[in-house]
Amino acid sequence: MRAVMLHAPGDIRVEDIERPTLVEPTDAIIRVTAACICGSDLWPYRGAEDVHGPAAMGHEYIGVVEEIGDDVRDIQVGDFVVGSFVASDNTCEICQAGFQSRCIHQVMMGSIGTQSEYARIPWADGTLVKVDGEPTEEQTKSLLAASDVLGTGWFAAVAAEAGPGKTVAVVGDGAVGLLGILAAKQLGAERIIAMSRHADRQALARQFGATDIVEERGEEGVARIKELTGGYGAHSTIEAVGTQESMLQAIHATRPGGHVGFVGVSHGVTLEGIDLFVSTVSLLGGPAPVRRFLPELIELIMTDQINPGAVFDLTLPLEEAAEGYRAMDERRATKVMLTF
Amino acid sequence: MRAVMLHAPGDIRVEDIERPTLVEPTDAIIRVTAACICGSDLWPYRGAEDVHGPAAMGHEYIGVVEEIGDDVRDIQVGDFVVGSFVASDNTCEICQAGFQSRCIHQVMMGSIGTQSEYARIPWADGTLVKVDGEPTEEQTKSLLAASDVLGTGWFAAVAAEAGPGKTVAVVGDGAVGLLGILAAKQLGAERIIAMSRHADRQALARQFGATDIVEERGEEGVARIKELTGGYGAHSTIEAVGTQESMLQAIHATRPGGHVGFVGVSHGVTLEGIDLFVSTVSLLGGPAPVRRFLPELIELIMTDQINPGAVFDLTLPLEEAAEGYRAMDERRATKVMLTF
Repeated sequence: MRAVMLHAPGDIRVEDIERPTLVEPTDAIIRVTAACICGSDLWPYRGAEDVHGPAAMGHEYIGVVEEIGDDVRDIQVGDFVVGSFVASDNTCEICQAGFQSRCIHQVMMGSIGTQSEYARIPWADGTLVKVDGEPTEEQTKSLLAASDVLGTGWFAAVAAEAGPGKTVAVVGDGAVGLLGILAAKQLGAERIIAMSRHADRQALARQFGATDIVEERGEEGVARIKELTGGYGAHSTIEAVGTQESMLQAIHATRPGGHVGFVGVSHGVTLEGIDLFVSTVSLLGGPAPVRRFLPELIELIMTDQINPGAVFDLTLPLEEAAEGYRAMDERRATKVMLTF
Repeated sequence: MRAVMLHAPGDIRVEDIERPTLVEPTDAIIRVTAACICGSDLWPYRGAEDVHGPAAMGHEYIGVVEEIGDDVRDIQVGDFVVGSFVASDNTCEICQAGFQSRCIHQVMMGSIGTQSEYARIPWADGTLVKVDGEPTEEQTKSLLAASDVLGTGWFAAVAAEAGPGKTVAVVGDGAVGLLGILAAKQLGAERIIAMSRHADRQALARQFGATDIVEERGEEGVARIKELTGGYGAHSTIEAVGTQESMLQAIHATRPGGHVGFVGVSHGVTLEGIDLFVSTVSLLGGPAPVRRFLPELIELIMTDQINPGAVFDLTLPLEEAAEGYRAMDERRATKVMLTF
């Protein structure tokens, strides 16, 4: 089968590799009908994470179930499914508490790769959610977004306790930040301040529900947020970048007693304990438990209440994945869909 | 009046200083009837915080109102009162959200000093809570504890979301950690694991509600907590020390999706962003908004439902404050009460 492989930083190739087979009785094999490139795929692509030989890429996917292991009960061959970027049993205490991304049996889909014609999905019953009905082209894009970026933005908004009466600040205008705005809006936030200096992303931010735009960054950005919130800071802040500057911007933009939801994968971030102590904000982040939200997100998508697929501004056939990576890397594209 | 002054690390003197007077119309002057020495007073005493010339010490107090400013409405001369270690207006948005320790008009009582015969209390209406009735000697000790260590332990337990069905781990067996145990018990926690290697403190921990004791520290302590919790970690962890080791112990002992309430004043603590990301725990800490809890705590004390005053294991007259500091420093005493 054809699959996207990273050989070295910047070196993306689409190659023939062996088609996956069932390994565990709880596995399923799906035929991937669409995949995409994630902002976090750029970390190894840019050399910010080590690359050890050719690595299968991708962790977002929708597809049709081709084969199931003997212990799979709820998912059937032929089901059209969406899954999280972390496979989870959905039965352990951590999953049951809604943190499926830290399931005791978790498997990171990025270690398997989904930018490929087929993919093995561990813990199929726990990981996959069946979609009923025939999604339109727009709904299909949105379902693909649900697999990671929507679910991650949603988690960030929930972790930041976005809701009625709240002012939400969003640090990061990538797909996750933008969908954090959509989530905050859907959760009832009163005011949503997008921190962005790119006109096209500002436009999408407003389309998703942003009421204010702040172009300043770092402590200047913090000062603007304070100005816009009567000196107090935001109630809820979504961090969707993962750098030292973005984390401090998020923490300092939040009022004491407020909440920061951080979902940008931390790279080189160190936080001073005394700064956290003095800030007195709640901090919750990590890999998003997308599985927790999938049934609700699928329902919102299939009833056209949300349109997260609007973040895809470039669609390419799988064979042109390398151009997709370049477009994301150079910020010519916010989010790239790969079709088969 | 007589007051405790720190001249240099280790150099505590009881001296005559000027009796405080009203400065702002929102101030009150109280005659302090009991004060105490806090674990956090030991940081400057030990030289871990800079000492700039003779500094008035203390921030915990109960007393009788002697004088009030023109704008004080709710507090009357003659009231017997308890106040928080942070003065707050109790009306700003931060106070109204329950984070009075970060009031936009906050005044740290430690910058004024309360180990003295009289003390000026800023924002008297916002800071002080009147106690009705005649407290017994035991209740008096407990009310004094409410001013900081009980309120701080209580906040840590609330921040850690201790409650029914939860396993709570407590890092730190000082007065705050011990009262965090009392709080967790009162909040309905199912199981409370005290991390302590001192027999007398273990005994008090059990008296306050601890069900298990773990003597190991650091990653060994974490491993023991995991063992005791089916491999998952605690749901809720109280951190009441403020060192690098104690913070990591608290974060790592907590299961994904769990909560850490940290109230030890951070000294030299740095946290890796990626460690927080992977841990996926909620982190909330800082100076405790004791004022939020005071009415409830006073009620619990005056109806003998809790006995936090049991943490005082040494009572000395104000004049012998230096011995009190030595006893705390050498861990001969858990908590010292100063009487007048």
